[in-house]
Amino acid sequence: MKKRLAALRMLLKSKELDGILVTLPANRRYLSGFTAEDGQFGESSGALLITASDAFIFTDMRYELSAREQAKYFNCRIYARGLAWELAHLAPELRLKKLAFEAEGLLVEQKAKLEQALEGCEFIPTLGMVSFLRRRKEPGEVRSIEAALVLIESVLGEILAQDVTGMTERELALKITRASEDLGAEGPAFDPIVAAGPNGAEPHAVPGDRVIKEGEPVLFDVGARLKGYNSDISRTVAAGGWEKAGDLFKEVYATVRKAQVAAIDSIFCGMTGKQADSIARQVITEAGYGDKFGHSLGHGVGTMVHEFPSVGPNSPDLLLPGMIFTVEPGIYIPGWGGVRLEQMVEMTEQGCRLLNNLDCFYDLD
Amino acid sequence: MKKRLAALRMLLKSKELDGILVTLPANRRYLSGFTAEDGQFGESSGALLITASDAFIFTDMRYELSAREQAKYFNCRIYARGLAWELAHLAPELRLKKLAFEAEGLLVEQKAKLEQALEGCEFIPTLGMVSFLRRRKEPGEVRSIEAALVLIESVLGEILAQDVTGMTERELALKITRASEDLGAEGPAFDPIVAAGPNGAEPHAVPGDRVIKEGEPVLFDVGARLKGYNSDISRTVAAGGWEKAGDLFKEVYATVRKAQVAAIDSIFCGMTGKQADSIARQVITEAGYGDKFGHSLGHGVGTMVHEFPSVGPNSPDLLLPGMIFTVEPGIYIPGWGGVRLEQMVEMTEQGCRLLNNLDCFYDLD
Repeated sequence: MKKRLAALRMLLKSKELDGILVTLPANRRYLSGFTAEDGQFGESSGALLITASDAFIFTDMRYELSAREQAKYFNCRIYARGLAWELAHLAPELRLKKLAFEAEGLLVEQKAKLEQALEGCEFIPTLGMVSFLRRRKEPGEVRSIEAALVLIESVLGEILAQDVTGMTERELALKITRASEDLGAEGPAFDPIVAAGPNGAEPHAVPGDRVIKEGEPVLFDVGARLKGYNSDISRTVAAGGWEKAGDLFKEVYATVRKAQVAAIDSIFCGMTGKQADSIARQVITEAGYGDKFGHSLGHGVGTMVHEFPSVGPNSPDLLLPGMIFTVEPGIYIPGWGGVRLEQMVEMTEQGCRLLNNLDCFYDLD
Repeated sequence: MKKRLAALRMLLKSKELDGILVTLPANRRYLSGFTAEDGQFGESSGALLITASDAFIFTDMRYELSAREQAKYFNCRIYARGLAWELAHLAPELRLKKLAFEAEGLLVEQKAKLEQALEGCEFIPTLGMVSFLRRRKEPGEVRSIEAALVLIESVLGEILAQDVTGMTERELALKITRASEDLGAEGPAFDPIVAAGPNGAEPHAVPGDRVIKEGEPVLFDVGARLKGYNSDISRTVAAGGWEKAGDLFKEVYATVRKAQVAAIDSIFCGMTGKQADSIARQVITEAGYGDKFGHSLGHGVGTMVHEFPSVGPNSPDLLLPGMIFTVEPGIYIPGWGGVRLEQMVEMTEQGCRLLNNLDCFYDLD
C-alpha cells in the first residue's frame, strides 16, 4: 500500500499537482484498504486526500470504526457536515492550490459543493489517474483474481453438470449467488445473468421466471468478488445437451468458440485493444454474423469488474504484461437467443496466459 | 406515467427549459418504466430526454429489448458510440438550446463529454427536479411501499422469533436476503446490516463472522425492494431475550424507543425535517446520550431507499401529506454496541400514519 502511495505521489509531482481527492470506491480501497461500499447513487462513504506529505481519509460516523481500523496509513477525519465543509477547514493548513479530482468518480453536484467551499483552490479534473496505477496487476493481485475465478468456476461447474431444462432463469441465478456466498464470496461481482431462449438475445438480460425448454440456448454470465477482487465468466449451453441443440445453435456456438480460441491464441503483448478485438470480430464477420456481435471483445478485470484496458473496436489501449482481461465474443439473434463464451487471461511477454480451469465447452471437430 | 411526464413538462416550461436529460436510475424508471439498473460506478444503462413534445430513451444494445418493451411512451434510440454522440446527432433536429441535466445524477466526466459533443447547447444543472415530483406518493405507490414492507417484516419477524445466540452476523444477513428473494423481492433495498455487540456501535457495519453472545445487543437494519419500491426497518434485540440483557441495554433501549414513540406521536403535517428530528433528539439528549445519536432521525423512502425529505437536524424540508419517511433514532456506544429502532410512516393531515405491522419491541412499563 505504501508503494502504491509512492507511485501516485510521483505522478502528482510530475503533473505539478498539490494533491488528489480520490472518490472512486475501487481506487479508495486500492490505496487505503478501506472496504466500505458506496450506498445508492450519489451517496459516498468517504474520500481520500493524498498530498506530497499527507494522506487523509474522510468519512462520516457510520464508517468511523472501519476507516480507523482498515486505512492504517491514513489520518482519519470524521465529518458531520459533509466532505466539502471538512476540506474547507483543512485546506488553508495544507496550502492546497491545485487539487486534482477524479472526473470519473465525482458527480457534478459534489464538485460544485467543493468548489464553493474551497475558494481559491483550483480543481483539476483527471481521468484514470489512479486506475492507471491499477492497470498492471501485482503478483498478489493476480492470485486474488485467480482465487475469485476458482470460486465462481466451482459454482458454475456444478450448475452445468446437471440438466437445466425445466428450471427458471431466476432460480439458477439465485443458486449461483448463494453457492458463491456459501464459499465465502463477498458477493456477486455483478448481477448474475442467466438468459434462456430469446432472452439471451439481450446481452444484459435480467433473469426472470421463464422456464427453460429443452434444446434452447441458455447463456450464463456470472462472477464473484473475493477480498475486493472480481472474476467474470460466461458459458452458453443447449438445455439438455449438444444432442438436443438445433443446427443454428451448433453453427453459432462453433463460430463464437472459434473466434475466442483465435483471439486467445493470437493476441500478443503490445497490441492495442482494437487489434485484439478485430481477431475475433473477423472470424464472426466471415461467418456472416458481424452485425450480431454488438459489444466489445473484452475488458480489464480487477478491483472493478470492468476496468482498464478496453478490448473493443475503438480502443487504443495497449495490452501489456500484468494486465488481466476477458475474451468474450458473442452472437445475439433477436427472437432466438444468444451465445457468449468468456475466458479470463493475463497478458504476458509470451502471449495470453489462460486463467480459467473450468472447461465446460462443447467439443467441436 | 403520462401524468408524470405532463407534470415534468409543466416544470420545464415554467423554468424556460427546452428539455431535460434524466440519468438518475430511480428517476429514469419512475418516468419511463425502464427497469435496468446501472452497473458499477460510471456505467449508465441509459438516459431519457424529455422535451415539450418528445420523449426519447437512449440505451445500448445490451438493454435494447427491455427498453423497447418497458418504456412504452418513449421513442427508443440505441447508441453504439455513447450517449453524447447520439445526442449530438439528434440535437439540431430538436433545436435544443437550453438543456437541463441532473447534477445529482451525472459525473463530471459525462458532463464534459456532452458539452463537447453538443456545442451551442447550454447545459443547465438542476437538483432534485424529478425527485421533487416523486416526493408525495400516489396511492398506488403507497401500496407498493407497504407491500415491500410487509415482505421484509414477514422475513424479519421469523428471524426474531428465534434465539440468535450462537449464530453469526453474516449467517443471519444471508438468511434475511435469501428469504426475501424467495418471497419475490427483486433484491435487498440495501446491503443488510446485522451488527452484534461492539460492531453495532458503527451504524453501517458490515455483517461479519462474529458469533453472537448471549445478552449482547444485536442490531438489524434490513429492507426489500419489490417492483421498484423499497422498505426499510430496524430492530435491536438482546441475544437470548430481555431477561439476558444488561442494565445499559435496558436503559439505552428504553430511551431510543421513547424517542421514537414521541416523534411518531408528535410529528405534524407542515413541520420541517429539523423540527421532527428535534423531538426525538430532545428525548435522547435529556437522557444524557445526545452525543451518541450521530445521524438523522429519518429519510424519505420510495424508488430510492434514501430520498426526499431529509428528517435531520439541518433539514428545511417540509413534511407534507403523501410523503413516506423513516423514524429511526439510535444510540451508539463505542466498545459496547448500538440500539436503533426504525419504523416507516406516511405523513397525513392527521399526523403520522404508521406503516409497520410488525411489533417486535420489548414491552416497557
